[in-house]
Amino acid sequence: MKVRVLVSFKDSVLDPQGQTVQYALHTLGYDFIKNVRQGKVFELELEGISKENAQEIIPQICDKVLTNPIIEKYSWHFLE
Amino acid sequence: MKVRVLVSFKDSVLDPQGQTVQYALHTLGYDFIKNVRQGKVFELELEGISKENAQEIIPQICDKVLTNPIIEKYSWHFLE
Repeated sequence: MKVRVLVSFKDSVLDPQGQTVQYALHTLGYDFIKNVRQGKVFELELEGISKENAQEIIPQICDKVLTNPIIEKYSWHFLE
Repeated sequence: MKVRVLVSFKDSVLDPQGQTVQYALHTLGYDFIKNVRQGKVFELELEGISKENAQEIIPQICDKVLTNPIIEKYSWHFLE
């Protein structure tokens, strides 16, 4: 069983990495790019746990380990 | 129009960040996590470009700017 977690800064938090990428794209002529936000993605491979349990535990893992809930938000879904 | 690009190391490339996260999860008791891979996610906001053009140009942007094609792979899709 595989799970994908997407972590990004909350909309109210400045994203300097994203801004740098956006600036780089503009200097290369891609000026139709109006905004860039950069985040992290985690792919977790689970074994020996039911889907129901995973559904409970993955949010705990996200809150405790994968994100900083003060400045980051996340979403997650099963891959298979 | 929004586009999401997922970038991760190729399967043959070591992922020390992912390994560190996996180790941290094990020490916290989440030992059903068999593997962790960490990557990057970019959300691009496009304006003034058709979907057809975007379909051509986004892979160029991924190859040139967002990834290092020697060690990284990517996938992308439209969000809206």
